[in-house]
Amino acid sequence: MARRDRQLATWNETVQTRDQQFTLKRTALLKEAARAFSSQGYHATSLDDVAKTLGVTKPALYYYIKNKQEILFECHMLSQDLGERAFEYAYKNGKTGREILLLFAKQFIESHNSEIGACAVLVEFQALDPANRKIVAARRDKAQLQLQMIIEKGMADGSIRRLDPKLTVFFFMGAVNWMARWFDQDGPKSGAEIAQVFADLLDHAVST
Amino acid sequence: MARRDRQLATWNETVQTRDQQFTLKRTALLKEAARAFSSQGYHATSLDDVAKTLGVTKPALYYYIKNKQEILFECHMLSQDLGERAFEYAYKNGKTGREILLLFAKQFIESHNSEIGACAVLVEFQALDPANRKIVAARRDKAQLQLQMIIEKGMADGSIRRLDPKLTVFFFMGAVNWMARWFDQDGPKSGAEIAQVFADLLDHAVST
Repeated sequence: MARRDRQLATWNETVQTRDQQFTLKRTALLKEAARAFSSQGYHATSLDDVAKTLGVTKPALYYYIKNKQEILFECHMLSQDLGERAFEYAYKNGKTGREILLLFAKQFIESHNSEIGACAVLVEFQALDPANRKIVAARRDKAQLQLQMIIEKGMADGSIRRLDPKLTVFFFMGAVNWMARWFDQDGPKSGAEIAQVFADLLDHAVST
Repeated sequence: MARRDRQLATWNETVQTRDQQFTLKRTALLKEAARAFSSQGYHATSLDDVAKTLGVTKPALYYYIKNKQEILFECHMLSQDLGERAFEYAYKNGKTGREILLLFAKQFIESHNSEIGACAVLVEFQALDPANRKIVAARRDKAQLQLQMIIEKGMADGSIRRLDPKLTVFFFMGAVNWMARWFDQDGPKSGAEIAQVFADLLDHAVST
């Protein structure tokens, strides 16, 4: 987790150690590589294709990334990390269930779109190796339960109307997960604008 | 289209010709085969695995289905067919933009869940061959535009609040498309119940 936290560090921080430099470069490369799969999909794209798209030599790429599966796995783990951070932020700044839910939604979508926006491989859950899939599924299930509990809290405090918490989470997370398929960082809407629109739709969907 | 219409015919209809029998059996097999991909994903599952899962011999399977790609393509085309039927139904029975939108949503989800519910390959758009992908993408884009126009109609007639029609369609279709990933025909909620919950969430999200 400590290593991943460093991966999420911004480029602006002073980089001191060789290890930190490696981690930052690797993370940047992982994100770019993940995007390289977007046009043809995970299975149809080779690591050679990725190197070509990124304009780096194969040895340079292999210095940072072992294989395709590592890119896919790290991309899913990064997405889960962003979810955890969004939960922390929402718990800290919201009071009612509705406030927490909407803060999470906005923060999660915004960070997603800026960090791994066009990363279509995020929908390729089944391409994960069984062992990796298990790890990602456990974190995803935990996040889904957290969201359900936030909705239940909102129903209890009167800020969210009576609804099926589980299906509501599936509804919203479907909308969010599907973004990986269509979001275009060079498109007409910024990640922040989309986050605003989606949080507003969710707000109307669940509010009393 | 005529052939596909026959494919959608229910088993209750009197089957008269050998051609019709072939088509009905083939459609049933296609749906089952599409489900067989769900646990391991499209790429990791061979047509041999599909035959084993369905308990049929390989020659029997090859009599009806040429290859894996055909299953994937037909599954996507069936999904688009269901969308077209849901539009027809909604236009016929709804008046305001909101009514048409909600009738479409309920009908589309319900028919989806009963016809090709657990068909997780529907999210595997990129596994389609380029030529097939082009055909599916054209139909999908047309459906998305139709939905946008329905929302615009609702905004004009006052039944839908002011919102971004395109992003609203992406929001809702994401929620719906993602169902292919988690819907379980043997789960606690029926396809019709889920359709009801999703249509209600959409209703609150968009209504004035």
